[in-house]
Amino acid sequence: MTHSSFAHDIASGSPVRLQAVAAQGQPEVTPALEELYRGFENELLVPLWTEIGDLMPAHPRSRAAAHLWRWERLRELAARAGGLVPVGRGGERRAIALANPALGGRPFATPTLWAAVQYLMPGEDAPEHRHTQHAFRFVVEGSGVWTVVGGDPVPMNRGDFLPQAGWNWHAHHNATREPMAWIDGLDIPFQYVTEAQFFEFGRDEITDAERITPERSRSERLWAHPGLRPLSAAPSTPGSPLLSYKWEYTDAALRDQLLLEREGYGGTVEPGHAAVRYANPHDGCDVLPTIRAEFHRIARGAETAPVRETGSSVYQVFDGSGVVSVGERSFTVSRGDLFVVPSWEAFSARSEAGAGDSDSGALDLFRFSDAPVFEALGLNRTQKDA
Amino acid sequence: MTHSSFAHDIASGSPVRLQAVAAQGQPEVTPALEELYRGFENELLVPLWTEIGDLMPAHPRSRAAAHLWRWERLRELAARAGGLVPVGRGGERRAIALANPALGGRPFATPTLWAAVQYLMPGEDAPEHRHTQHAFRFVVEGSGVWTVVGGDPVPMNRGDFLPQAGWNWHAHHNATREPMAWIDGLDIPFQYVTEAQFFEFGRDEITDAERITPERSRSERLWAHPGLRPLSAAPSTPGSPLLSYKWEYTDAALRDQLLLEREGYGGTVEPGHAAVRYANPHDGCDVLPTIRAEFHRIARGAETAPVRETGSSVYQVFDGSGVVSVGERSFTVSRGDLFVVPSWEAFSARSEAGAGDSDSGALDLFRFSDAPVFEALGLNRTQKDA
Amino acid sequence: MTHSSFAHDIASGSPVRLQAVAAQGQPEVTPALEELYRGFENELLVPLWTEIGDLMPAHPRSRAAAHLWRWERLRELAARAGGLVPVGRGGERRAIALANPALGGRPFATPTLWAAVQYLMPGEDAPEHRHTQHAFRFVVEGSGVWTVVGGDPVPMNRGDFLPQAGWNWHAHHNATREPMAWIDGLDIPFQYVTEAQFFEFGRDEITDAERITPERSRSERLWAHPGLRPLSAAPSTPGSPLLSYKWEYTDAALRDQLLLEREGYGGTVEPGHAAVRYANPHDGCDVLPTIRAEFHRIARGAETAPVRETGSSVYQVFDGSGVVSVGERSFTVSRGDLFVVPSWEAFSARSEAGAGDSDSGALDLFRFSDAPVFEALGLNRTQKDA
Amino acid sequence: MTHSSFAHDIASGSPVRLQAVAAQGQPEVTPALEELYRGFENELLVPLWTEIGDLMPAHPRSRAAAHLWRWERLRELAARAGGLVPVGRGGERRAIALANPALGGRPFATPTLWAAVQYLMPGEDAPEHRHTQHAFRFVVEGSGVWTVVGGDPVPMNRGDFLPQAGWNWHAHHNATREPMAWIDGLDIPFQYVTEAQFFEFGRDEITDAERITPERSRSERLWAHPGLRPLSAAPSTPGSPLLSYKWEYTDAALRDQLLLEREGYGGTVEPGHAAVRYANPHDGCDVLPTIRAEFHRIARGAETAPVRETGSSVYQVFDGSGVVSVGERSFTVSRGDLFVVPSWEAFSARSEAGAGDSDSGALDLFRFSDAPVFEALGLNRTQKDA
Repeated sequence: MTHSSFAHDIASGSPVRLQAVAAQGQPEVTPALEELYRGFENELLVPLWTEIGDLMPAHPRSRAAAHLWRWERLRELAARAGGLVPVGRGGERRAIALANPALGGRPFATPTLWAAVQYLMPGEDAPEHRHTQHAFRFVVEGSGVWTVVGGDPVPMNRGDFLPQAGWNWHAHHNATREPMAWIDGLDIPFQYVTEAQFFEFGRDEITDAERITPERSRSERLWAHPGLRPLSAAPSTPGSPLLSYKWEYTDAALRDQLLLEREGYGGTVEPGHAAVRYANPHDGCDVLPTIRAEFHRIARGAETAPVRETGSSVYQVFDGSGVVSVGERSFTVSRGDLFVVPSWEAFSARSEAGAGDSDSGALDLFRFSDAPVFEALGLNRTQKDA
Repeated sequence: MTHSSFAHDIASGSPVRLQAVAAQGQPEVTPALEELYRGFENELLVPLWTEIGDLMPAHPRSRAAAHLWRWERLRELAARAGGLVPVGRGGERRAIALANPALGGRPFATPTLWAAVQYLMPGEDAPEHRHTQHAFRFVVEGSGVWTVVGGDPVPMNRGDFLPQAGWNWHAHHNATREPMAWIDGLDIPFQYVTEAQFFEFGRDEITDAERITPERSRSERLWAHPGLRPLSAAPSTPGSPLLSYKWEYTDAALRDQLLLEREGYGGTVEPGHAAVRYANPHDGCDVLPTIRAEFHRIARGAETAPVRETGSSVYQVFDGSGVVSVGERSFTVSRGDLFVVPSWEAFSARSEAGAGDSDSGALDLFRFSDAPVFEALGLNRTQKDA
Repeated sequence: MTHSSFAHDIASGSPVRLQAVAAQGQPEVTPALEELYRGFENELLVPLWTEIGDLMPAHPRSRAAAHLWRWERLRELAARAGGLVPVGRGGERRAIALANPALGGRPFATPTLWAAVQYLMPGEDAPEHRHTQHAFRFVVEGSGVWTVVGGDPVPMNRGDFLPQAGWNWHAHHNATREPMAWIDGLDIPFQYVTEAQFFEFGRDEITDAERITPERSRSERLWAHPGLRPLSAAPSTPGSPLLSYKWEYTDAALRDQLLLEREGYGGTVEPGHAAVRYANPHDGCDVLPTIRAEFHRIARGAETAPVRETGSSVYQVFDGSGVVSVGERSFTVSRGDLFVVPSWEAFSARSEAGAGDSDSGALDLFRFSDAPVFEALGLNRTQKDA
Repeated sequence: MTHSSFAHDIASGSPVRLQAVAAQGQPEVTPALEELYRGFENELLVPLWTEIGDLMPAHPRSRAAAHLWRWERLRELAARAGGLVPVGRGGERRAIALANPALGGRPFATPTLWAAVQYLMPGEDAPEHRHTQHAFRFVVEGSGVWTVVGGDPVPMNRGDFLPQAGWNWHAHHNATREPMAWIDGLDIPFQYVTEAQFFEFGRDEITDAERITPERSRSERLWAHPGLRPLSAAPSTPGSPLLSYKWEYTDAALRDQLLLEREGYGGTVEPGHAAVRYANPHDGCDVLPTIRAEFHRIARGAETAPVRETGSSVYQVFDGSGVVSVGERSFTVSRGDLFVVPSWEAFSARSEAGAGDSDSGALDLFRFSDAPVFEALGLNRTQKDA
């Protein structure tokens, strides 16, 4: 039995137009039925029986498509935008977002997640603002920009992950003579569909005191000591009080897991697959209320078992190269490439070191997803294929 | 400063098509910019600076519209469907959903909520199935149908509220010689946009033992004793283990609140405005993980203060008549009418008894909303106008 | 291997005095050892190796004893106290507490729980005060007293359970021409050993407005509607906002469970054994942060399976008669009798109707325990004997 | 008004013996009253009115006393025990506990906390066992012992804090040619009074593979990366999965706080007072369900404001010297000294560097307390004196 008889295109955005069709589970088409359907249209009504296959599928069938964006092309276009598009009040950020090919031209990487490359020219500032959308930055290359969050300048260097929970004031400034590109992740699509967004402009200029360029933010000095929390500070807003998760720690954690595995102990997710979740040191929860962030290292020659999960993910290749499978598709990937995994599509990754790769030959993947939304509401399901 | 320069229609569903425009916050239109935008399109990219006004508004500006559906028309069309559309496997339910006029013909009352009238003819059965979508029934008139949830027949009578959390098997049967209409509420749109849905068919026929027609379900006999919980039973699934909230209790609770107010004590929300939330007796939380349900009684002549909330609601008038304001619109309402309140639109209601109303003259409103989603994720905001 | 070599009486309350003994797990007694022990005494030190058997037993071996107090005797002594001991400021309450025979003369029913009979003469008032100790009243017979909690007069009638969380102002007044006796339960011993207690005197007299004698308290009118909570009120203090759990509801819930069992459905804890927990309607948790309260009905001829639990309980027989086993002891019990079950002693009860019992012949037991403390700290364990 | 008329010594441990006295809040002494009191004694009853002042004081008045134990004396006696008392099955540990002078000779540092010095000779093993009591080790000097927890050898070095939640198998072995002393903290008194304890003997010998002496335990390699958690592991038991909090991190966190203060930012608790709490990286909660552990650094010349808290603490001076005030008493303290702060006694500390102190001149204090018990049950109160 299937649910395949759709009477109209659910995603068309057009007014209610119902078409009586003869199909399984559907009433016989008669003039009276046609008249009934005209009555529904007039009253802005839609029957379940014509839509149930689309609305209530046996399992999630994502409207989004698996897709890959090449880092080389993104960076090149971002650099061209650097010369043509000013950064300032109104446009706010020189950010260019992934638009999933199956989501109708919207700048939505997945139905819930936004992923963009942001670009800042030497000496440029991005003005201060705040919004309820939860955000983070991840740096795949370069350095020289400081994100000023609530007055605290946070450096950005390769491999660093910078969460920034909603409603915190923030600006960016490039303190160097080089442009810098990085990745922004936000829950813009989720808050767009649920209609939860607030936004405020902040100061047009940050102060000189905020233009300092420390190696560690104040948030790190308070919160980046393992297993220790300051008695002086309890976070007043949701999301992590730690504003930067530096690469050296992530790298060390992954190395430790693979070494433990080699010594015969647990630690990895599966053979050759080390992984960490970025966690809020205050409560152990996800760094952002609506976004989970993880880092996966797949050792040279290893391959992960296919997994299906409710909810969607965006990955960026941080290092190495390999092949990833998303549902029926597969992509050969290398540093900086971004790809999306739609809800309930099986995902696996294989490390395949090529020339010029890092010594280790591992495939390093940064991932973010909407998992906290699903877990908070009890909608999370996972299926590990045998 | 405004965010009004949209380069393309965000909701159009079309492929990426960017139009360079000269507007505040936008770069100057040059051939180079045009070429850059063509590059974006080729790579499936969309800049933030052209979309920010739509994606990141100062406060929620709902795509949905305030709208009213008249009960009389719904019932009439449902009755005609009763004669034309069979109930059975495939179509599953004779349910006819409200389609918000601003949501593109989809059967979505609001961006997250489904509301439908369901209709069952004398002697008819709706076959068993289960789904992850959380659901409830509310009865504005009639009786005679039993909902069989996990084998437990639950009667449906005027004023009863029947929550039914996701993934519970359920069927309906009409045990009388009269047709019956009621309201179904579900989180179908929310699970559609987040892509969390699972669905399974159950048995085509319920057993004779399930066709009994008790006055109280077994769930009520275990869970409907105020402040008492059975030691024998801990709910194994999310959502309320109590499958019916009978009208007599709701009515008594509202009467008590208005009497307390009259005696000079607290109890009402504001003068003349009594209200209860349907709660899970196991944990005091909302009856369903994604849906809140409430009942409001506005005493004759009383008026509620306008309130804005993030998230959307659907109301049904249970009794009385009056005028409701939703944002810029207002509607004169009476028994059975349904209307929606989009996110962040101010809502207030005034009781205006007309001829033929109940003695009390109160306006009785049943309401359901997506508030638990917002609260679970920290996205809830409320603004009470002075 | 045993842990039986105790060098001194751990409960003696005397200064440190260590006695070297020759026993398994103990060092050989030599003059040097004796001198070492004198050194320990001088420095206020005690070695683990002499005490470990008492401090770290294989399972809880309660210092408390199973014991039964006859209601008849309690009531008689309480009545005599009614004529001899005034109620007023300083002494505060005419309450007479059970003193476990193995707990050194302290008024502790168990190491954590206080149980007392309280007695109020016609027209008497007990003055207002508040304390951090969590309290409740349970009424095994009589009526006519109102407990005024935060200004809300709550009637007390046979079978009613009245929780009253810490730090609420409360007074009692007897509005009738008959004396009344009831049971108070508190966590006095627990707060005594943890040293958490605060206490304040309130007004010496309650107002005339508080002397009214409604059949239902205001708290019941707001909170005693099954599955419904007032939108107007969120409890500001821990513990249940519902100040009375009336007998009619408890009785109905127990009857429903036994009927469900008879019809072939679940609902009872085990055959012939119905039971409810009094729950906070706000959050479904225990009515008091440190005290759990339950009501058990053991049908005529039924017997419960022996259960061991960490933590201690006090039971009062509400109706019927039977035999209860506590560890090695057993007691024949009837209406009003109180007994204690120490930690990890196996408990079971058997209903044995005698002459003059209720028609039903069931044994009705009210129970309270310190289970919430154990559960909050992860120290709860249960063992059901086969 | 006082509550001072106690009819018998509540802590005496003797059978119920009531003495009628003439005092405020007490009934007049008459033969009838005397007879009533004899009746109470016979029935194992104690009236509230004679005990209320002791049982329900206006605020906690601890039975425990502020007291100081000198490290020099403890270490000397422990070393003598090293030569006289073997470590082995039965006695289990060469641990010598602080016995509060006001708690009747029991080995209870406070009513809820155990603190002991443990001593292991070169090459010695302490046999494996497990118990529900939650435990930790803290190292004020020395090194060379590994604690083997669930097969994971954890090194112990000066400044390290090693939590070990209840019911984990553990043994110790000294791998060096030097004896080693350290501090054990447990909730033995709390579990003794609540009667929650279970205990099991483990293997008499650990394996050679467990005798390895790594610099970092496996638990640290999985869990000691700031803000990162392994995807592979979710703790299955309560309490921290991180088995060692190394000194280098604690020291760095405290230095950072004082530097932030010097730069004009928040970070310290109060001027010159840096402090961290040891936290469970899995959930941000306390490292143990019943024990909180903290480290405080009071800069040279600084003094903390007096604070009263419900619940009790034990402190050990880790470095520096100074003066601490506990209620009415004050102690001059230096490295290794241990002292207790009873419930609701005001505590403050002042750093007073003497000759031979560390360069910094700071007073470094390790602290543990029963705060999680109080917070879990809503019994925590704090009062900061102006």
